[in-house]
Amino acid sequence: MPAPQNLPPPRGFPDAEFETRLTTAQNTMAVAKIDALLLTTEADIRYYSGFATQFWQSPTRPWFLVVPTTGKPVAVIPGIGAECMARTWIEDIRTWSSPHPHDDGISLLASTLREVAGKTGRIGLPMAAGSHLRLPLADFEKLRHCLRNMEFVDATGIIQFQRMQKSELEISKISYVCSSVSAVFATAAELFSIGQSDIDAFRSFKTACLAHGVDDISYLVGGAGAGGYNDIISPPSGRLLAHGDILMLDTGCTFDGYFCDFDRNFALGAASDQAPRAYRVLFEATEAALNIAVPGTTCAQLFHAMHKIIDASGVLDSDVGRLGHGLGLQLTEPPSHTAFDHTVLKPGMVITLEPGLTFAPGKTMVHEENIVIRETGAELLTTRAPPELPIIG
Amino acid sequence: MPAPQNLPPPRGFPDAEFETRLTTAQNTMAVAKIDALLLTTEADIRYYSGFATQFWQSPTRPWFLVVPTTGKPVAVIPGIGAECMARTWIEDIRTWSSPHPHDDGISLLASTLREVAGKTGRIGLPMAAGSHLRLPLADFEKLRHCLRNMEFVDATGIIQFQRMQKSELEISKISYVCSSVSAVFATAAELFSIGQSDIDAFRSFKTACLAHGVDDISYLVGGAGAGGYNDIISPPSGRLLAHGDILMLDTGCTFDGYFCDFDRNFALGAASDQAPRAYRVLFEATEAALNIAVPGTTCAQLFHAMHKIIDASGVLDSDVGRLGHGLGLQLTEPPSHTAFDHTVLKPGMVITLEPGLTFAPGKTMVHEENIVIRETGAELLTTRAPPELPIIG
Repeated sequence: MPAPQNLPPPRGFPDAEFETRLTTAQNTMAVAKIDALLLTTEADIRYYSGFATQFWQSPTRPWFLVVPTTGKPVAVIPGIGAECMARTWIEDIRTWSSPHPHDDGISLLASTLREVAGKTGRIGLPMAAGSHLRLPLADFEKLRHCLRNMEFVDATGIIQFQRMQKSELEISKISYVCSSVSAVFATAAELFSIGQSDIDAFRSFKTACLAHGVDDISYLVGGAGAGGYNDIISPPSGRLLAHGDILMLDTGCTFDGYFCDFDRNFALGAASDQAPRAYRVLFEATEAALNIAVPGTTCAQLFHAMHKIIDASGVLDSDVGRLGHGLGLQLTEPPSHTAFDHTVLKPGMVITLEPGLTFAPGKTMVHEENIVIRETGAELLTTRAPPELPIIG
Repeated sequence: MPAPQNLPPPRGFPDAEFETRLTTAQNTMAVAKIDALLLTTEADIRYYSGFATQFWQSPTRPWFLVVPTTGKPVAVIPGIGAECMARTWIEDIRTWSSPHPHDDGISLLASTLREVAGKTGRIGLPMAAGSHLRLPLADFEKLRHCLRNMEFVDATGIIQFQRMQKSELEISKISYVCSSVSAVFATAAELFSIGQSDIDAFRSFKTACLAHGVDDISYLVGGAGAGGYNDIISPPSGRLLAHGDILMLDTGCTFDGYFCDFDRNFALGAASDQAPRAYRVLFEATEAALNIAVPGTTCAQLFHAMHKIIDASGVLDSDVGRLGHGLGLQLTEPPSHTAFDHTVLKPGMVITLEPGLTFAPGKTMVHEENIVIRETGAELLTTRAPPELPIIG
């Protein structure tokens, strides 16, 4: 295996980074008259605490982080996580023995919220698009009943808006994983071959990603088919790659919890006329977005810049709903490049540009790059895909 | 890399398996007077539809499966998933363009539920322990308002109870991934060494798991420390493994969506007196549970059998909340081996036996095997850990 092309940045964050995140949240909470934030999901809790564990894979136990208006967040978590949380910057860690038959943390959470937010306080929690509550609905109803003099209000915007703009340390982690995976895609001709099962192709790719320094291949989907593919979110099927196939792999690998999210297309042995033309349209659409991805541009403008080129090419439209999005602690984060998302780009935002199209019945193509917005414009985190559809094998 | 020790079973399931799952659900729905099940999470939707994608990593879009009292489930999903869903046994696939600014599938879902369950029907959805709703709370409130003449009732038990008992095809997938990872642990002396960073140890393990035929290493946590470890859910820290360390890796690898979940302990170079003694206690506790893990035994009895041995050993207790659990499409599923879970073991249940203890301040140990309950008793899916703490390196 080739050595990694780049050295990994340090893991974790200094406390100062968490202090900044907390202060930003508390400033916004003051404006929104929110007395406490209640967080329940892996990414939100990790963002404000640094709590890093794959134990989230187990759906059995709920986990809570309460952000007060002043002072550090309070962790209200199952005892099994106390040691792991104690290594973060969080000091106030309250635990219960979970799973519990009658009260899986709800009374402890209720008393913590009362203590932090007052008996008639307003509790902000994520309720809007892209969010969910990671606790049983019955337990949330119980909490609402316990705290019936308090008001639960939406705080999705507060958290999403803050998380959209990445720090330099966050960017360094995303940049590293983008570079590592770009280096893997550069060896595509060694990884993928005609006659190989797509399951083996995926496995080769994953092994190479590990060798190039990613922590996990948390997301790997793709498609392959004669002259094109028509499914961009599926696992491999066991089908053998064949001469004339177009193969696409789309991956979200992670380093220290931060995702890349991009894909690459390859023709195996040869390509028909249509696929290279579709590829070229997507390359040009991405170029158009790259050219205007400067502070002040809106996501809707990015969408229109890409859509215009796809539209002008005369190909069919596709229905993936958007042409790119934010990324970070999650594979996809706000904003969305759609006609209705008018989020204004700012320095530090990390986004994907992801134009897609349908170039013939049953033949789709997607293309994706990851960038960070700088004062001067877009900085590519991925190694730019070649302008013409590469042929391998 | 050594070749896989065992051949993988076929991927997917014949339609007959989904028909059986559906019939079982519909029979229980009839008894519970539920007119439709509403499912929103990856595991529940996959169980009844076969819908397999890692696209769940993206939190942007909600996905719904509606199970009627007669006939096949209806998928209500974002357009981007239509092709992937069309390859399952589901026929009625209703899509919308997502993300959507005002109506992200809620009106389509509401009309589907009305059509399927009637205007005053009862809708069952998972609300209790171990469940969550994977859609924005605000959208769920909107749905409840749209369907205010319908009743939403808890269906956690219906789904969990059914999913607990695995079919032979499900067992073959779990068995395969348990065998593959057992074969990897058998090469521990080649994978882990004194002076190696724990990050590299984890990476070596992941690479070996891929070489042994698992699809993904979805969960890998562990601990290492001089004479013992005290954190069983953390990622590696970059610390170098040292002579006298006890190293534990706990992994949930998957094959075709099905998990193993077990760990192994190793002493590096040498072990103090305490750790081998703690290890022996856990081995004996597991033996005690293995001996009584027959149809008719309850999870509480498994708990007490293990707890009695840990207690008699004079070591400190630990607070992980339970001593094992079910597994399958999720890393942890019901039942739980606790004093309060009186689930009766039945043939086809796949469970872990996972005793843990604290043998000195700051020194924890956990031990885990995966078994399937047969008419005649416990059948090990993992290669039984050795009775004495292995020393490597």
